[in-house]
Parts: sequence; C-alpha cells; structure tokens
Amino acid sequence: MKISSSFHAQHSPMGAHSSFTVGMFGAEGGMALEKGGPADGGLHIGYRTESGKFYKLPFYKEAASEAERYSQSDAADQNGADVIFGEADIQRDYKWATDRFHAPGIEFTVCSPFFSIPDPASASADDLKFASCPVTFLELSVSNDSDERWEAFFALENRSTWMPMSGRGPYKGAVTRNQMGFACQEDFVDEFTHFDITKGLDMRPNGANFLLPPISGLAFDVEPGKTQTIRVVLAYYLAGEVTFNHAASYWYTKYFKSIDEVFKYAFSNQERYLAETAARDTELETSGLSEEQQFLIAHATRSYYGSSQWLDDGKPLWVVNEGEYLMINTLDLTVDMIFFELKFNPWTVRNVLEQFVDRYSYLDQVFSPEDPGTLYPGGISFSHDMGVGNHFSRPGNSCYECPGLDRKCFSYMTCEQLTNWILCAGVYLHKTGDVEFLSKHHELLLQCLESLLNRDHPEASQRNGLMSFESSRTDGGGEITTYDSLDHSLGQARGNVYLAGKCWASYLALEQLLGQLDEEEAATSARAGAVRCAMSLEAAYDESLGFIPAVLENNNQSAIIPAAEALVYPWQMGLKDAVDEEGPFGGYIRMLKRHLQNILNPEMCLYEDGGWKLSSSADNSWMSKISISQFVVREILGMSYDGEDRADAAHVSWQVKGSEFYACSDQFGAGKPIGSLYYPRIVANILWMDSNAMTTRPMPEESPSSHCTL
Amino acid sequence: MKISSSFHAQHSPMGAHSSFTVGMFGAEGGMALEKGGPADGGLHIGYRTESGKFYKLPFYKEAASEAERYSQSDAADQNGADVIFGEADIQRDYKWATDRFHAPGIEFTVCSPFFSIPDPASASADDLKFASCPVTFLELSVSNDSDERWEAFFALENRSTWMPMSGRGPYKGAVTRNQMGFACQEDFVDEFTHFDITKGLDMRPNGANFLLPPISGLAFDVEPGKTQTIRVVLAYYLAGEVTFNHAASYWYTKYFKSIDEVFKYAFSNQERYLAETAARDTELETSGLSEEQQFLIAHATRSYYGSSQWLDDGKPLWVVNEGEYLMINTLDLTVDMIFFELKFNPWTVRNVLEQFVDRYSYLDQVFSPEDPGTLYPGGISFSHDMGVGNHFSRPGNSCYECPGLDRKCFSYMTCEQLTNWILCAGVYLHKTGDVEFLSKHHELLLQCLESLLNRDHPEASQRNGLMSFESSRTDGGGEITTYDSLDHSLGQARGNVYLAGKCWASYLALEQLLGQLDEEEAATSARAGAVRCAMSLEAAYDESLGFIPAVLENNNQSAIIPAAEALVYPWQMGLKDAVDEEGPFGGYIRMLKRHLQNILNPEMCLYEDGGWKLSSSADNSWMSKISISQFVVREILGMSYDGEDRADAAHVSWQVKGSEFYACSDQFGAGKPIGSLYYPRIVANILWMDSNAMTTRPMPEESPSSHCTL
Repeated sequence: MKISSSFHAQHSPMGAHSSFTVGMFGAEGGMALEKGGPADGGLHIGYRTESGKFYKLPFYKEAASEAERYSQSDAADQNGADVIFGEADIQRDYKWATDRFHAPGIEFTVCSPFFSIPDPASASADDLKFASCPVTFLELSVSNDSDERWEAFFALENRSTWMPMSGRGPYKGAVTRNQMGFACQEDFVDEFTHFDITKGLDMRPNGANFLLPPISGLAFDVEPGKTQTIRVVLAYYLAGEVTFNHAASYWYTKYFKSIDEVFKYAFSNQERYLAETAARDTELETSGLSEEQQFLIAHATRSYYGSSQWLDDGKPLWVVNEGEYLMINTLDLTVDMIFFELKFNPWTVRNVLEQFVDRYSYLDQVFSPEDPGTLYPGGISFSHDMGVGNHFSRPGNSCYECPGLDRKCFSYMTCEQLTNWILCAGVYLHKTGDVEFLSKHHELLLQCLESLLNRDHPEASQRNGLMSFESSRTDGGGEITTYDSLDHSLGQARGNVYLAGKCWASYLALEQLLGQLDEEEAATSARAGAVRCAMSLEAAYDESLGFIPAVLENNNQSAIIPAAEALVYPWQMGLKDAVDEEGPFGGYIRMLKRHLQNILNPEMCLYEDGGWKLSSSADNSWMSKISISQFVVREILGMSYDGEDRADAAHVSWQVKGSEFYACSDQFGAGKPIGSLYYPRIVANILWMDSNAMTTRPMPEESPSSHCTL
Repeated sequence: MKISSSFHAQHSPMGAHSSFTVGMFGAEGGMALEKGGPADGGLHIGYRTESGKFYKLPFYKEAASEAERYSQSDAADQNGADVIFGEADIQRDYKWATDRFHAPGIEFTVCSPFFSIPDPASASADDLKFASCPVTFLELSVSNDSDERWEAFFALENRSTWMPMSGRGPYKGAVTRNQMGFACQEDFVDEFTHFDITKGLDMRPNGANFLLPPISGLAFDVEPGKTQTIRVVLAYYLAGEVTFNHAASYWYTKYFKSIDEVFKYAFSNQERYLAETAARDTELETSGLSEEQQFLIAHATRSYYGSSQWLDDGKPLWVVNEGEYLMINTLDLTVDMIFFELKFNPWTVRNVLEQFVDRYSYLDQVFSPEDPGTLYPGGISFSHDMGVGNHFSRPGNSCYECPGLDRKCFSYMTCEQLTNWILCAGVYLHKTGDVEFLSKHHELLLQCLESLLNRDHPEASQRNGLMSFESSRTDGGGEITTYDSLDHSLGQARGNVYLAGKCWASYLALEQLLGQLDEEEAATSARAGAVRCAMSLEAAYDESLGFIPAVLENNNQSAIIPAAEALVYPWQMGLKDAVDEEGPFGGYIRMLKRHLQNILNPEMCLYEDGGWKLSSSADNSWMSKISISQFVVREILGMSYDGEDRADAAHVSWQVKGSEFYACSDQFGAGKPIGSLYYPRIVANILWMDSNAMTTRPMPEESPSSHCTL
C-alpha cells in the first residue's frame, strides 16, 4: 500500500504528553513536551565516509531546501555530492508500536511501547512504575559495506540548551532543562554539540563543552565491512506541579525523582519494553485487518498517546489533551475514544467520568427557541471540557463554551455532553461490570434521565424524543454539537438527527442501567423515550429526498452519514436486538439502512477518491467519526456499497499525504487537514479490531463484564 | 531630539529576567519570561466609541499590515474608518524609569522602578522584599471629550492560556501558568478574553470564562466629558529551581509564595515604587547630560535590568544574562557593566567576581605560537562565562570557548578574562574599600600577577609587557578578545593593542592592590609590567600611518579607537596620574592622544552620520565600547574633535531607528544592529553621569571607599 515514507508520526510514552515526532522529509520535528504539534527541532542521522561525503536521512527542515540533493544514492555517488536519502532510498515499516526506516547503510528504529496501564487502585508500584516511565526507545544500526571507515551520527536539534550527559552519570547523550533528552550507554560513542554536523564530528572527542549550538549528538566509527549498532533512550521529565487552578503533577514523578532516574530504569528494563512493543506489532499484524486499516489504527494510536497525560492530584487523574487544541478531557472526544480505552485501561474511563461528575457537571434550565424568556426546569449536564493548556477551567465550566451564541462555534453543547456522559457510563458498565460505579451514581443516573427528558420538552405530553429546548446557559442562544465547524445549519443541536441518535442510544443505556438498579419506573420511562425518539426519526425520513435530512427544521436537505453513528452504543452495550432491523426498533434501523444506501455514493457522501464525506453539504469530514460509521455500516448493519474497497486507501492518503506534517489528524476538507491536527480521537478505529465484518479473522464471543487483556 | 516614537523598550523589574516590551508600532511585544528578545504577543490599548469606531495604539503586529489606517485622527475622522494612532498622533516621553505615550484621548504610562538593591548580607528582609518584587506598573488614562460614551480597553495577547483573575482574589486581570499576568483593583472594569477586541467588548460583562483565545483584557466605560484612569500591575513569578547543573531559584521566592502574593504586595506598596520611579527620572533629568545622552542611558538601563537575574542558591547569586545570547555572567560584559553596578549595587560585583573564583577559574599552561608543542607555566584565569540559558556550564568551563580554534570566534579569551577579573577587582576595591575582599583574595592576586606575566613571556628577561603566549586550552590554536566578531586580524588577542591596554591597566591595578597587601616585591613587579607594556605600546606608534596599528603583527594597518579604552580603569581606581600626559606614563598617554586625534575622522573611525566606528577596517561597532571610549576621549583625555556634537544623535538613531525592534542593542554595522541584541552591556554609559566634561553640571569631588547612594 506504499504511498510515501514521508509523513510524521508521534512517538510517545503513555501519559507523558510528550512526543518524538519524526518521519516527514525536510520538516521540523524532534522531541517536545506538552506541545500540540510537531517539535520545531530536527533530527540528524547518517554517516560520513572517510573521504568526507555525507549520507543522511532527511529528517530536518533544511533538507527540504537541499532538495536537489534528494537523490538516489547511486546517482549522487556519481556526482560526488552529499546524499540526503529520499523516497527512492527509504523504506519504512510502520507497525503498531514500531516505526523502522531502512536506507542504504542505515536502519533506524523507533519503538513506542504501549500496553494495558494497570488500575492504580489495585496495581503494584512496580507495575505502575513500568507503565508510567516516560521513554521511547531508538536503535540506529549502520552497516559499512565500503572499504573506508565511516563516522556514524545521531543528533537532535533543539532551540533550547543541550547539556551533555557525560560527567553526570554512566551515559553519553544530552539533556535540556533536565526535562528532555537522549542517552546511550555504548562506550564507543563520542558526544558533540555544534552548529552543524561537520563541525561536530570534527570536534571529536572533545565536543562536549560547547553549549551554545542547537545540535547535540552522538558519533561513532564503523569500520569497513562492519555493522555497528547503538541503542538510544529518549526520556521526558517534568517535575512538580504542571497544572493550574487544580494542582497536579505527572504520575511518573512518584517513582522517578529526576530524568537521570528515568534513563537508568529504562536501560535496565529495555528488554521488557521491547517485548511489549513486539507483542503489539504482532497483535495488529494478526488482526485480519487490511494493511490500510492496520496503518490507520497504528497512526491513531500514536496520536492518542501523544495527547495522554497521567497525572496525580493526590489520586490518579487521567487527561487526554485535545491534540493541537490542548483542551483537557473534551467529553465529546472521550465518548469516541472509550472503545480504545476500554480495551487497554478501563479505569481511565471511570476516572474521567468521575472528574466530570465531581467538578465539571452543572444544572441549568431550558427554554423554547420561540420564547427564550421563559425558563423551565432543565437538569444536569457536563461541560464540554475541563480547561486548556494545563489550565483547569472553573468547576462547572469548560474553556470553550460561551453564552450568547446562537448555534455557532463556541456555543454550549449541553444536550450532547449529557448524552456523551450517559453513553460512556453505559458502555463502561457493560464492559467492566463495575457495580460499585453503578451504585455510586444511582441518583445521578436518575438525574440524567430527567435532564434528557426535559431537553425534549418540559411537558411530558409534548415530547417526541428529540432535543427541542435549549439550555439557559446559552443565554438565549442555541446549542451546537461536536460537529461545531460543519455549516451553521448542521452544527446546531436542536432537531439534529445525529444528536437524536445519541439521545435514542442514551435512553437505551439509561433503561439498561436503571433496570440494573431496580428503578423499574425510570427504566420504563427511559424505554419510552427511546421509542418516541426512534418513531420520530423513522417518520422523518423524506421519501422525496431519499434520506432523512440532517436537521428536522427549516427545510434542511443535507444528508449526513452520522445519522446512524449512535448505533454503535447499544451494540457496544450488548443490546444487539436494538440495532437489529427485525428487532423492536426495526423500523428505525431499516430507515437508517435506506438512508445510508442512498447517500453512500459520489453524488452525496463520498469524495472522488472514495473517502467518506460526512455531510453532503459540507466539505468537512472527521476521520474519527468516519471510523465509527464504517463500523456501523459494515459490522452492525452488515451493509456494503459500490466502491467501498477504495475508502480505506483514500483515508490513508489523507493522513500520509494530506496530513504529512501533523501526524494523525481528524478534520479534513477534500483530503487536506483543516483542523483537529495531531489529534487523539481517531483511536475510535480500534472498533475495527472487534469486528467480524471488517477482519478476516473469526472473532471470539464477547465476554461481558471482564476486563480486556492483551 | 525626536526621531520617532516607534521603538521597543524593555520594561523590567530588577533581577527577574523578565520584560514587558512595548513601543514599536506594528510589532510583536508584551510580557515574557527569560527570553532574549521581545515577547511574541501584543498589546491592545484604546477605546471604542458608542457608535462603534475604534481608536487604538499601534502596539500589536497586525497594526503594521493595517498601515493605511495609521493616520492622523483628524483625517480618519473624516472617512469614518477605525483609527490606529501613528507617528503623527503619538508623543512619547522616555525618561529613566518612566515611559509615557500620549495620543488623542489616551495617556499610557509604564513605570519601571529601579534603585539600589541593598546588600543581602546586611539588609533587612523588608528592604530585600521591596527590591526583589518582580513587578512593573502601568497607568491608562482615557479622556473622553466627545458627547458619546466610550469603552476603553487594555488587553494583552499571548500564545499561552490566560486565566482570568476574578474568583481567585480581589483583582481583575489574567495570569498564565501562574507565572505572568496583569491585575487591576478598580471595581469598574470588566474582564474579557477573546480572539479580537470587538468580540471581547461585546461579551461584557460575561467575558471571563472563555479560555481558548489569546487576547485577555480589561474594559471600562468613560462617560462623555470624563476622564477615567486605571492602574495595572504586571507581575512575573517563576517558582522553584530555575537553573540547571547548579540549582538556584529566584530570590523573590523567599518572600513571595505565589504570583498572587506579588500582586498584593505591589498594590500595597505602589506609592513607594512610584516615588522611586520619579526620583530616578529627576536624577537623570538634572544630570546636566544632553537629551541624547539621557536617552541612551535610559535605554541602556532598561536592557540591563531585563537581563538581570537575582537568584538564591543558598546564598545570593547575581546573574546578568547576555541579552539575546542568554550567556550567564559573561566576564567581558561584567567588566564594562561594573560602573553601573558599582553605582547601584556594589555587592553584585563582588558576588559575580567570587562566583568566578569559586567555580569558573582554571589553571593552564602557555605556548609560543611558533612552537605550540612546548608548554610553559601559565597560571590562573577565568572562563568567558558561566553557561547559557539557565544551564550552568561545568566548573572551570564556559559554554562558549572551544579548543582547536586559531583566533576565531568561540576560541578562548584566557588573557582578556584574566585582565577583566583583575580590573573588576581593582575598581570594586577602590570604590568600596572592601578590605575583607582584598585580604580574602590575597593569594589569588599574587597568582593573577604571575599568570599575567607568564602570558607575556615565561622567561622574565624576554618580556615586553604584551601578551605573546597562548593558552594551552586553545589546544594549539590562538586566543581572541571580546571583539570576537571583528575581522580575524583584530579579534586576535596576541599583540592586540586593545588587550595590551587592559594588561597595562591590570598591572597598575595589581600594583595598587598588592601594595595595600604589603606585597612590596610583587607590587614592584606589577609596576614594572605596566612600564614595559606602556613603553612597548608607545614605541609601536607608526609615524607613517599616524596611529598605532591594532595588532602588532603581520603588518596590520587597522586603526582602532579601543586602543585607549583601558585608560578608564586607572581613572576609576583613582590613579589619575597614570592617565595624565604629564605623569609617569606620559609618553604612552600622549601617544594615545595623537592616535585618537588622527583617527577620529570620517576617513578612519567615524561613520558618515558622525557615529563612532571602533575599527577603521571593519563595519562593526559596539555601543557599550563606544560609550567607554567617549568617556576616555572627553573626560580623561580632555579631547574634542570636529563634529563630535553629531555622535550622540547618530547613536540615538542607531538604537531608535536601527534597533527599533530589539530595544537596546550593542553591535552595529552601518547603524543597523547585527548582533548583541536586547543587550545589557550598554550601561557602561553610566560613566557619563560621573563626568565633568560630558555634563554641564559641576561634579562633586570623588569620595573613595564609600558606597554610592541615590
């Protein structure tokens, strides 16, 4: 499936909100802490022959302006110029946890181990230390098939000051601000720091005192006919309180008092980490998914960990930052990422849900858009997020939602966030059987039902299952959905069939949970809400259009794929009859199938390249949402359509070509990223690994109420 | 003297290494911590009329691209467009501690209080708290002479997250990362945060929950015919260890546990700070110096404090960072800045000198350039600096000096740094009479003499007073001087007449100090060194050239003003006979006068604009060094030359027009800054305030051995 080897990937420890970004040719990259995009440094890897000619990988910005030097090594050999390896020379193996580059004479490997983070409530300190250690592992192997000696080098460029490691411990390498750095324990390497590689190599072995230049690295000789290999550990370390308005530090600081301790532990436990890396690679390779699907999962996984932040505020505090936007635990991302989190770390889902309960829930009133001045009882909901850039917002408030906006970006998402919390709780409880969580939130679940009903209509007799009333928090404005940057008419929450699907699924979730709590009356009421919602939606199918319009207002005529998105929740809660076209909601399900059959075509909701266009009326598509809808279409609804085999390849191309700089991105227009860059949400595609229809491997029967293990 | 009101100034607390940079129209600026250049934010100040028209000061980058809107307010009034005030509308009063902008309807004042920092060894905690509090004071006054209500605003733009202050204390304003922010205690202001001012004002009074946008500010109404004034405190706060490889925290953290405490103290003590501000303004205004000279001193002073860093490593630790380069306590800057430091804070001079003794001195050997393989005894010297960017270099090593370089940038400055330490000690002791320092360093001063002699020639019989032997640290290369980026021939240390002058002055300093220590023999030896040096230099005057060439080697024919620079040291040590043309070194002094008389002309060492060109053969001039040489020429040598009245105006223009973005800069080529931007060293010009010849005010008799007071 090779499209190009030139694209950035984020290589990140779990929960350290840090990344080593590498892969795009001629681009900035390198190590960065808590940054919502690629580092602004560079990576210099290669070798210099004894006769003075350089061969380099192209992982630094200036390589782009030296483009004439991108050449097949054979051609360059003839004209004697230095060689910066390009597309023709570089092969890249991009696995779930391993990213390996091959070029003539060079093999460079980045290993990003990830695995189940054990629940801090029950796990041993040893296991938690192993899971939290903020490191990435590199290996550089140089094979000299010539008859002269080579000097191989590995160097990082960074605007901050590099302080050589020699003299402070057993390693060679460099750190900056005691926060970030690289180390190697091979005794045959020399450290250097300089403004360019040539001068750095020329200073060997006395290159370690110069602190002004931005390039710091390691150099070693490779004799003719020999292969020499070094292993390098990249480490991150932020000490002390890192968040504001609610103080927390990184969880790893419980076990590591300095970056030096991180290096030491990483080298001591290197083989264990590499075994985890290999296990993940194998797991994805044997998943039965296509090469394209495997790529998209691997790419998404890296971005997720790059945004993850495992903190300690006295208790464990799990945060996923919103990619480039750095918003803290955005709830409409959480609901899409739970499938991934429940596979690996179910405790993080509970952790985030309870942060919302404890600090980011609120009570509102509601009003009819026709009469904003008259307020009715509303109920509980949850803020869009918990803050931004390590700044926690005031309890009960997101950093995003502003009053006074009528269905525009930055308005409130009160109804959708309510459904998101309910759906997360429903899926979490089905997957984990965490009865303690269920009983603890007994009252809250009743409140959620009341709130959801009131947003339909405060008067029970007038309810139709859809959201019709706006939150008083909008101050007379109108709510939006997570599709906030779709055109104005689609971004609105009221009468939105995507959100209506989430309301339907939320009623079903509440029915299940309240039933388990023996709240028969409430469970019955929830069921009735689901029935009302499904009936309204089924009735809203427009025969003349051939689909259900996106918003049931103002003669809207947009067709949207996410009309069916919410089917994933009952499915993931084990409510398979609810999504069965012969089941109790068969009319609704059959309507959705007709809807999808009629819009999954190039005239409506497919791009020319076969990629999915979530709305017929907007050139704006979210990869995370596409992933879920693909699962709904293929696995849940068992549908196929003409040209479906082109979709995954198109989506790979969006990431590899379109988003080559920003690693894995979410929001695309015409195959180019237009927002939500460097984004964690795409891990929703982990759903595919749990799919009979999308893999060639038979799936085991689901075993509810047990943690997934690797 | 108005050239332009559009130039950046650094407004900085003392010792906080932080700046509020403002003044250049259409440029980035704002608050920044530990940055060697202007902040990359912006400042929005102005008012909106009730009918919706904006009047703004131009202190943000986009103002430049809206240049057509720079217009006199009268003209703009006619066409109805928003007004961004420009040169014609803005008057700027730039005093020693006050920077005030006047535009129609607006008066905006920045007060940067500075005063003598008391010696931590003896001062009270109260006085030290007052001196270390990291704040700057602003005042914004809006006078509405129209007949409609105005909304006035003050806002800062910053890439980091702004967290509103309301809810966390008695103030309105915003902070980012609890490290930096602004606060106001007027109760009639509203906070806002938004992507632009219009939307921010439109959110009043509910603008304080939105945390995503970069602009955060204060808004208030000004009724027709009224004037409304707010006072704003800017505060900085970096907690915990801020340096690496030698841990230290900011001194202010001893008294303030958070930025909130800083704000509280600043508001409580505001009048005391403003009284200090007014006192400094008056002191400079009544100095008798010209408007140009006053400007240059005021500009230099701000840059000095912006680079200053008062730390605590268990004891006080004084650091001056090297402007844009961020090198720590560069010794060849220290020697130029001591005149300023001795006026205000003599303890900082001793502090830095003893840091060099304790951690940044080293012993070397020396060699003749003709025979680099044969090493002779060298002696003690001091590293060029102590590290960079808060990273202390390894003891005994600078971050700058590299081995293996022959008289090129980044080579060693062993000889010059030795003279710099001696000269600092000499001037410090003369000004303070600190006998404890003298006796503590008794042995060291003997070592310094030996080392200085050995760098002339290891064999006493062959000495001529000039540096002829290179440090073994150069590894066979050659030393340079602080003029490292002059052309190769002038940057070299060996045979350099600028450095020879410093050697001569160092011998005189050692004679004085060793005499006070009753080291008669050594004092006599030092005197003999001075005599040898002066005789060699006097003899090196080239009658055919009409000056002494810069380097006494290889037929060098460059004329340099700094040949006479070192006269400032004996003068500042009270050794006025040594610089008297009728005194014991009269021949040397008369030679230097002839030298200067012949080169201070447009053919040699003056630019066309009358500014000084330090070398006839390089378009490269340092403002700090010019300041010293101006003092030498006018005050010490009592010289004048044709067109001397044009020099200061030219130098003002270099800063105001040439370096408009980088505030006060040091290194200029043809009136444009080419390095050493945002630089502290120019405070050497404080010498002028102590000059009979340069001021119109009679100077009091010098009173040695007493601290200067304000």
